[in-house]
Amino acid sequence: MSQVPEKPVRDLTGESIGLVETQTVRFDRPLELSCGHTLPFVDVAYETYGELDAGRTNAVLICHALSGDAHAAGFHAEQKPDNPRHKPGWWDVYVGPGKAIDTRHFFVICSNVLGGCKGTTGPGSINPDTGKPWGLDFPVVTIADMVAVQLRLIDHLGIEKLLCVLGGSMGGMQALEWAVRHPERMAGLLPVATTASLGAQPLAFDAVGRNAIISDPQFHNGHYAQHDTNPARGLAIARMLGHITYLSEQSMHRKFGRNLRHAEKPGWSFDSEFAVETYLDYQGEKFVDRFDANSYLYITRAMDYFDLGEGRGGLEKALKGTSARVLVISFSSDWLFPPSQNHRIAKALLHAGRPAGYLNIDEAYGHDSFLLPSPTHQQAIRGFLENLLRQERGLAEEPVDLDPRQPDEKRRMDLQRIAELIEPGASVLDLGCGDGRFLQYLRQRGAGRVVGVDIDPFRVVEAIENGIDAIRADLDQPLEIFPDRSFDYVLLSRTLQTVRHPSVVMREMLRIGHRGVVSFPNFGYWRNRHQISWTGRAPVSRNLPYTWCDTPNLHFLSLKDFEDWARDEGLKIERRIPLDFTSASEIRFLPNLRATDAIYVIGRG
Amino acid sequence: MSQVPEKPVRDLTGESIGLVETQTVRFDRPLELSCGHTLPFVDVAYETYGELDAGRTNAVLICHALSGDAHAAGFHAEQKPDNPRHKPGWWDVYVGPGKAIDTRHFFVICSNVLGGCKGTTGPGSINPDTGKPWGLDFPVVTIADMVAVQLRLIDHLGIEKLLCVLGGSMGGMQALEWAVRHPERMAGLLPVATTASLGAQPLAFDAVGRNAIISDPQFHNGHYAQHDTNPARGLAIARMLGHITYLSEQSMHRKFGRNLRHAEKPGWSFDSEFAVETYLDYQGEKFVDRFDANSYLYITRAMDYFDLGEGRGGLEKALKGTSARVLVISFSSDWLFPPSQNHRIAKALLHAGRPAGYLNIDEAYGHDSFLLPSPTHQQAIRGFLENLLRQERGLAEEPVDLDPRQPDEKRRMDLQRIAELIEPGASVLDLGCGDGRFLQYLRQRGAGRVVGVDIDPFRVVEAIENGIDAIRADLDQPLEIFPDRSFDYVLLSRTLQTVRHPSVVMREMLRIGHRGVVSFPNFGYWRNRHQISWTGRAPVSRNLPYTWCDTPNLHFLSLKDFEDWARDEGLKIERRIPLDFTSASEIRFLPNLRATDAIYVIGRG
Repeated sequence: MSQVPEKPVRDLTGESIGLVETQTVRFDRPLELSCGHTLPFVDVAYETYGELDAGRTNAVLICHALSGDAHAAGFHAEQKPDNPRHKPGWWDVYVGPGKAIDTRHFFVICSNVLGGCKGTTGPGSINPDTGKPWGLDFPVVTIADMVAVQLRLIDHLGIEKLLCVLGGSMGGMQALEWAVRHPERMAGLLPVATTASLGAQPLAFDAVGRNAIISDPQFHNGHYAQHDTNPARGLAIARMLGHITYLSEQSMHRKFGRNLRHAEKPGWSFDSEFAVETYLDYQGEKFVDRFDANSYLYITRAMDYFDLGEGRGGLEKALKGTSARVLVISFSSDWLFPPSQNHRIAKALLHAGRPAGYLNIDEAYGHDSFLLPSPTHQQAIRGFLENLLRQERGLAEEPVDLDPRQPDEKRRMDLQRIAELIEPGASVLDLGCGDGRFLQYLRQRGAGRVVGVDIDPFRVVEAIENGIDAIRADLDQPLEIFPDRSFDYVLLSRTLQTVRHPSVVMREMLRIGHRGVVSFPNFGYWRNRHQISWTGRAPVSRNLPYTWCDTPNLHFLSLKDFEDWARDEGLKIERRIPLDFTSASEIRFLPNLRATDAIYVIGRG
Repeated sequence: MSQVPEKPVRDLTGESIGLVETQTVRFDRPLELSCGHTLPFVDVAYETYGELDAGRTNAVLICHALSGDAHAAGFHAEQKPDNPRHKPGWWDVYVGPGKAIDTRHFFVICSNVLGGCKGTTGPGSINPDTGKPWGLDFPVVTIADMVAVQLRLIDHLGIEKLLCVLGGSMGGMQALEWAVRHPERMAGLLPVATTASLGAQPLAFDAVGRNAIISDPQFHNGHYAQHDTNPARGLAIARMLGHITYLSEQSMHRKFGRNLRHAEKPGWSFDSEFAVETYLDYQGEKFVDRFDANSYLYITRAMDYFDLGEGRGGLEKALKGTSARVLVISFSSDWLFPPSQNHRIAKALLHAGRPAGYLNIDEAYGHDSFLLPSPTHQQAIRGFLENLLRQERGLAEEPVDLDPRQPDEKRRMDLQRIAELIEPGASVLDLGCGDGRFLQYLRQRGAGRVVGVDIDPFRVVEAIENGIDAIRADLDQPLEIFPDRSFDYVLLSRTLQTVRHPSVVMREMLRIGHRGVVSFPNFGYWRNRHQISWTGRAPVSRNLPYTWCDTPNLHFLSLKDFEDWARDEGLKIERRIPLDFTSASEIRFLPNLRATDAIYVIGRG
């Protein structure tokens, strides 16, 4: 992912949703938990924003992370929007009129998780058998149990099918569990900065945090409420540690560096002197005021136990039954649930034959990036949701016109010819898809499933906005995300000569597709030969318009070079279409000399 | 750093040093500390291995990290080498006969740090004023104070000048402080996996660890010894957390994954179930048995306060007075003191006009890599130390013969001609230096300072073995490590056409050097033109021996292309040497047509 972004994307600030209220509903039916225990009833705290449409097609469920709650957006009455110390809900920058999750179009639901401490039943709730808080007598809950409670809420709200379930971090785990358990109840899935299971390092961080809580002498084996105290030191330490894992090293260093709090010189003590120490102290103290230590134990344990593929024959099999359209999003600087973990989810979906897009966003703020106003993130979420809604409502998209009659240097007559090669119903993967408009065009011409790959995150976002399942990936790396023979056609138009390892890309192409379609500028074109021979310079011509030192073209090949190579590789050239871009015609006679470009359809030999 | 290593390096296992003993010496002279307090006397525990030579030229001081001690190698009498539960010193894989730090050649010293708990004065020592352990009454110590104590030991051992001071992690900090404070007392400096100051993230981890210790009810404000207890839970938590930062995410996951300790199914509890939890518990418990909580506080605080450039006008100025030859080593997967932190040290040295090499080693084991048997690491340390010893003893190196009469395809007559261009005393930087033999050759011909750059770590190690200050770097990234105009000549032999961004590399070349010397294969050579014109294929010839798809050459240029470009860039071509490799002659007539290769000497216009 070495390419520099070409242009910034637009911001989606929108407006605040204003005053909101948390509601609570009690479900009296007993709830069986994964661990085998049964809760006699469950209380659920939730908020909703926007209006459910008549067809009930526009409901979006947001799932919150470890320390979140039902209050995702807007202000509570006791908060004042004009008081800078009063803060809106935890995802307010994403939810509201005109924002990424636009409450003018969507009915948004967010509920506090089972095991939490913000209104939904948890270890701090009263145990009906004893009349005292549950404490550690509360049964261990799982992500699946959280989803079971959310399902009751969705039923209660009269929603048959959610448009989308989305969430970051632990919210993403819930969204994934939804997709596996209740595929018929959702059209879209948007897991962000998450994982299908915790690896050893996050398990270890969780263990250390819980150790700090349990070791606190005020913990009283979880019954601290009965002792009228709480393990504040331990919980603060757990939160401090967690907080480090939510930020990136760079963002932390940029914010605090080695600054001292209020001195030029060291204090020669173990007090908090460095700004970062004071900040962590503050984060720890603030958290203790608003969060319950037992809930911290239960919720981190639920994350530890979460393993989407476990008991389901692995991740790929687990995801086979899903039917939602999926966009997986990760952040480059997230080291808690890093891009590789999110990539793994998208890969499992594609290998399970499910449609999925994957976008890794370059942001510097670590895991917390998903909570911050990242324009790329906002644009991707909006593009995905709006396309889902259009699709669910059966609305047609605007017709795409490729317009081959552009100015000379932009004329891409190869695309027009390639489109004519794709038969109706055929599935197409476009490597180097740009904004996805060509795939849109193919889809409108009757192609089956279409998927795009691009290295540039802004092109991937545009493709998502154009309703394409797009994957951010570097063609110079193996495209393991795609299974063997998963597409009828894999396209590589005017890209072969720009990759570092053309053989690798071509092999991947024919591993993934039944056929490959390649177009490239012809190095053997007579003007090029002429220039080399008579001027003794590397050619700069209409089909190779760059000087030797600034060219994105890393390889030069003629039709003959390509054909020699295809023969050596044992590939079958099914069709050759030499083109002259200057005269917009097909070349039959002396193509290696006269064609500016060529298209080849190749198959395995 | 995208290139794949070409060959593995050889292992340096050697033999165990056998039985060793820790000695203790008391220095009765009061020691003034950085914080202003004075210790009336200092005890120092140390070990030595090997023999000091008559000239006292072969003494190597090893500085240990946070939890290390004086026992770097061999076995104590109470340990038994044949008992697998008995372990040798902490760096035994590096120190011994035939090992990287070969005790047949070097006299090796290692002492426990001030503030430690393994024999050197620290917070657990008896405060002579009270007759009780110091506890938190012990004054805060710094890395500089640790070095002051080591200096006394070196004086005591009668060593005027150390051959080298080396160490990993906090050991590297001590080594750096040595180089700034006592440049006259050392010939070499080898900081490994370290930093010139902690950034916000490691400061934060330290703070959380100390918080756990101080919050432990058994801490008793540091006077736990007087209460006959110790803050074992807190220290264990600090150690667990530290341990996570010493490993890499990959290595941790490879080792433990999500394995459960002794069950197939979850236990639905908060007990340690996952293997990684049990492992951390074990690490925590083991540490409590062998380490003192107060020492943990003092030593981590010393690391926090360490800032080599502070009070010295910044890092570069601080290093200006050093005279040691330096090799800085980092590990790719180290996220505690990552490559960038180590690179920063090497950069400051080079910008201060000091000689320095920099090697980033690809190892998967995180920060702990420096303790593990990494063959690349072993080979680099050995190569560096042996060259230092040779240099200190004034021994000549074996003459290098470039041997231009190699088989055709390997004949590099450009090198011979380039060597003739370099006047005696001129400093030379070779970009793409390989094993450094060409620089060795130039040095033997009378060149002044010579430095090499290569992307391949194994080539960099070979260059170090050949006594060259070599830097691992990717030419496609800016070479910020080198200051402006710091070399007379910067060489780029047969490399320009392989880089992604030739303009960037050339600009860097002329920023760093007064002159650039470039050699490249001539694309305008008549055989190439002939092939393109008459066969319509990308040329495969003696000077461009690769096919279009497997070539490392990403750009093709002729003499004319290069000259056009130099003119556009405003560069001055001071000399042009067209060559014919096939006839081993210089070409004067029609060079763009007849030369297979060319050398250019260029300067800023």
